[in-house]
Amino acid sequence: MLILLDQDGVLADFEGGFYAAWTARQHEFPAIPLEARRVFHLVAEYPPDLSELVMETYSAPGFFRDLKPIPGALDAIRDLLELGHDVRICTAPINQYRNCVPEKFEWVERHLGHEFTSRIVLTKDKTLVHGDVLVDDKPEVTGGIKPFWQHIVYDQPYNRHVAGPRLTWANWREVLGKISPAAG
Amino acid sequence: MLILLDQDGVLADFEGGFYAAWTARQHEFPAIPLEARRVFHLVAEYPPDLSELVMETYSAPGFFRDLKPIPGALDAIRDLLELGHDVRICTAPINQYRNCVPEKFEWVERHLGHEFTSRIVLTKDKTLVHGDVLVDDKPEVTGGIKPFWQHIVYDQPYNRHVAGPRLTWANWREVLGKISPAAG
Repeated sequence: MLILLDQDGVLADFEGGFYAAWTARQHEFPAIPLEARRVFHLVAEYPPDLSELVMETYSAPGFFRDLKPIPGALDAIRDLLELGHDVRICTAPINQYRNCVPEKFEWVERHLGHEFTSRIVLTKDKTLVHGDVLVDDKPEVTGGIKPFWQHIVYDQPYNRHVAGPRLTWANWREVLGKISPAAG
Repeated sequence: MLILLDQDGVLADFEGGFYAAWTARQHEFPAIPLEARRVFHLVAEYPPDLSELVMETYSAPGFFRDLKPIPGALDAIRDLLELGHDVRICTAPINQYRNCVPEKFEWVERHLGHEFTSRIVLTKDKTLVHGDVLVDDKPEVTGGIKPFWQHIVYDQPYNRHVAGPRLTWANWREVLGKISPAAG
């Protein structure tokens, strides 16, 4: 199968990185713990007058580069490749792309090696990208066209309202084992 | 139609930028003029002992950001959008991605506006990206799967051995007018 994996919230621990960075800045408003998160866009979880500060935090130099891998993610990628699947990283940059975009590549190079950077597909619109499945923590992945892939939700507290198969790096063998490759 | 446009050699004048940068460095070996270029990869056109210098030149900070638009390209994009086509920029980063990747975004922002950066699909493997046509100066565009798009060669001296429709920003209306959208 051609398997597209989202990067932030699936491979890279965006939430943990933000929690640590926000806490380190000692803002009066405390960081919201992952288990209390209810909406996908982190900025929408904080009071509107803090939006600028929230965006500044995750667009700061080094933020994306230094995110920790989500436990199990790197091993799962190696296992998927060994099982003969074609694995690509399909990731959307933030609007403030200047640090995010190269650092997404640096993150992949650091954790998966330089050659793996050739497997990155960086796009705001994932519907254009061909694959059998897209593993993504975003509750609804929409764009310009009807996608080819089946969206498999990577389980996170902020997407638990979505029905359908829910994948984690603990249960991925079972969840992906039930998927049939897309026709064509 | 969903039209994918390659960036370097189609929208951005990579060749002109390299010629100027190489000439400014006053190397003993002169820059090869565009009309004398015969192979797609510029590095292969220069003596092997200069490969490092060639790659250094086009991976230097500012190189991709400061490329001039190919004449007619920006007007053509505006016209294509006005005609109702969905236009995306489908571009492959160089292996030394650190400057190239964010600067490709900066180039698009500078010449087409920030919002247009959401139309960038950055990938080494363009076969994964859905489209009716891909306008690309690379003679053969290959990758992991059989592509959906029809490749239309953007005419450059180094791809004249390829048969089939050849597009320039002078004849694009005529060439694209003969294309029928892909099924599905």
